[in-house]
Amino acid sequence: MAIITLTTDFGEKDHFAGATKGAIYSELPDVKIVDISHSVSPFNVPEAAYIIQNAYSSFPKGTIHLIGIDSELNPENKHIAIYLDEHYFICANNGIMSMICAEIAPEKIVEINIHDRIATSFPVLDVFVHVACHIARGGTLEVIGKVIDTIKPITNLIPFVNDDKNQIIGSVIYIDNYGNVITNIKRKFFESVRRTRDFEVFARSYKFNIIYDRYCDIVNFETPEDKRQDQGRRMAVFNSSGYLEIAVFRGDTKSVGSASSLLGLKLFDTITVNFEPLQTLLRKE
Amino acid sequence: MAIITLTTDFGEKDHFAGATKGAIYSELPDVKIVDISHSVSPFNVPEAAYIIQNAYSSFPKGTIHLIGIDSELNPENKHIAIYLDEHYFICANNGIMSMICAEIAPEKIVEINIHDRIATSFPVLDVFVHVACHIARGGTLEVIGKVIDTIKPITNLIPFVNDDKNQIIGSVIYIDNYGNVITNIKRKFFESVRRTRDFEVFARSYKFNIIYDRYCDIVNFETPEDKRQDQGRRMAVFNSSGYLEIAVFRGDTKSVGSASSLLGLKLFDTITVNFEPLQTLLRKE
Amino acid sequence: MAIITLTTDFGEKDHFAGATKGAIYSELPDVKIVDISHSVSPFNVPEAAYIIQNAYSSFPKGTIHLIGIDSELNPENKHIAIYLDEHYFICANNGIMSMICAEIAPEKIVEINIHDRIATSFPVLDVFVHVACHIARGGTLEVIGKVIDTIKPITNLIPFVNDDKNQIIGSVIYIDNYGNVITNIKRKFFESVRRTRDFEVFARSYKFNIIYDRYCDIVNFETPEDKRQDQGRRMAVFNSSGYLEIAVFRGDTKSVGSASSLLGLKLFDTITVNFEPLQTLLRKE
Repeated sequence: MAIITLTTDFGEKDHFAGATKGAIYSELPDVKIVDISHSVSPFNVPEAAYIIQNAYSSFPKGTIHLIGIDSELNPENKHIAIYLDEHYFICANNGIMSMICAEIAPEKIVEINIHDRIATSFPVLDVFVHVACHIARGGTLEVIGKVIDTIKPITNLIPFVNDDKNQIIGSVIYIDNYGNVITNIKRKFFESVRRTRDFEVFARSYKFNIIYDRYCDIVNFETPEDKRQDQGRRMAVFNSSGYLEIAVFRGDTKSVGSASSLLGLKLFDTITVNFEPLQTLLRKE
Repeated sequence: MAIITLTTDFGEKDHFAGATKGAIYSELPDVKIVDISHSVSPFNVPEAAYIIQNAYSSFPKGTIHLIGIDSELNPENKHIAIYLDEHYFICANNGIMSMICAEIAPEKIVEINIHDRIATSFPVLDVFVHVACHIARGGTLEVIGKVIDTIKPITNLIPFVNDDKNQIIGSVIYIDNYGNVITNIKRKFFESVRRTRDFEVFARSYKFNIIYDRYCDIVNFETPEDKRQDQGRRMAVFNSSGYLEIAVFRGDTKSVGSASSLLGLKLFDTITVNFEPLQTLLRKE
Repeated sequence: MAIITLTTDFGEKDHFAGATKGAIYSELPDVKIVDISHSVSPFNVPEAAYIIQNAYSSFPKGTIHLIGIDSELNPENKHIAIYLDEHYFICANNGIMSMICAEIAPEKIVEINIHDRIATSFPVLDVFVHVACHIARGGTLEVIGKVIDTIKPITNLIPFVNDDKNQIIGSVIYIDNYGNVITNIKRKFFESVRRTRDFEVFARSYKFNIIYDRYCDIVNFETPEDKRQDQGRRMAVFNSSGYLEIAVFRGDTKSVGSASSLLGLKLFDTITVNFEPLQTLLRKE
């Protein structure tokens, strides 16, 4: 039984997500539909890119991911279907897939051409659902589109390394439900620049010398529980998706505060990492 | 396999929606349950009416729609089940179905009478679930209620046309996830009054002479992309459900602003459409 | 077909809930996954305890409830699986299950010991999913953990009765989607202290002498509808889960106001019930 996932900016209230599910079941009664998120901020392509990248690979091979963000068809925003890492993705060609494609080369990309003459203002319902059901029935991408080579990139999502190789300039790409602030600096990239050097992570005026593996690694469990003041402590961590994250231990934006609220960090803010000069390292090595 | 959809004002946090799904699976392990929305504003019957009207028809014929809004049983708020357009609806008789019924005559309406002697404060769990499962098992409406002829209307949801037939006075019935402002004026009704005349749509002090078919129709794709200032432009559009909508191109209430926030439009605000005098039209025709 | 429910503080936006569902389907394609709530306030154990307690028993016997709140493994926060009332629960040993266990004795508790050497920061995905699927396949708890006798309690969730047995001091444990304020005083406990005495419920400066069974019991249906002023009236009620609740009739925090907003009641606020002196009662009896 095929699985179709939904990632959209439809929100939790409107009829759009419900109507989409109804249309899928009308075509394919036996499919499994799984909501990944309907709460992507409206038209926020980087946010959707982060969410789908970190959710898709938990699903079984062959899963079909329908992504409804900024998907109204126009001359500059075509519809595409991509086969990559044994998963299918259906979305607009607006950069959403560029984060995943930067790491894993797509096996096939098609520009969807099954549109009726009159385009609609609800393409997820009127186009994406048919494409998803076509794939779920075992249909090939070539039947619903023409093969293309490249997709549109999202700019400014890749962190920058200076010529001296002693600074990474990254930026905030996502703020999660706990108010944790996620940068575009991945652990593997960080380690490849760092080699064995010491480092300092700067987020606004805050500095971090340690990047933890888990949130509770900041706690000293040998101190008696009532003497600890861990909740609300700021920290840097590589999160479960492998991204450098500025966090607040057990934070909550609405009550005790979070990294985002307490440190004043917002989407697209700059996060820098400074390393010892490379020559120091080379001398050591 | 039967489908039961849920449209409620339970919210995303409380146990109500989960408990309802558990009760359905306890009665009917093989049914498919689909959430349409649990984020209807509390007790907001017009909002629920708009959502269910625009979601239900995408589902397969025979789907059972359970609507839990303001459903506590009392002498003025009976429980009903309706068969209409080959779909089933279970709800309180509080006007929710009057929008759909204004367009499509119900084939059968029953007032549910399976209540135990002591009414409960969670009728969705204690009554609607049993009715839905009864229908899903192929049971008839007559077994769980007595046939009635009419249902309670929602007042003020129908737009008004003046005697001279040169003005429609409508109102805002829904504000969607993008902050777009949806009126009760449907395209078909608009065109039947308009005939071939020019028109002006007024929303507060804002005037619109064009009603687009799609949001991106406002964009001039011949202007170079970096010279366009489309985001944030206000526009009128017939939305994908056929309603006249005041929108802001790529709007988002929380960031760049939306029709609702930028134009200051709220639920129940008046939207008027003025046409040329009818005699002008008749002279032309 | 097994059912696995999810109750978490992941929120509606992030990839966590989607990734969890994908991982479950990857292990067990035929399981049914049901969302109870992903909107528990971050790290809010009492809130999660209230939600799971009131949702679980509607599900069929044998259902597996996965609870992802404050679940990072550490020396003071172990992972447990519990078999109770013919349901399975998988969570951290942080007090979440103490509300349910206070009423129904668990048949078996195990401390999960299948963790790999390196603990992760996403234990729901990396540990709980495997445990849930193990149970769904018919595996026993002993295979994935060692049997333990007791679990960690939540303190301050039990209402207090004074020595004279004429006062209950309770507190607010949950505020629901309608802004209704739910106390930790259950009907059965209330009646066991009350016996047949008159009472006064105090919430801040507000006093209630009646506790209703249903919200609309406050309405006098003999008064003509347009003369009633019921909406917004404050009341005490035993809610559908059996808890004493301070409510506002047809309240909505975002529009007309709610018990929480209008009466200024917050989580952990004190609610007291005063009864006639016991000797008065005894003299009467």
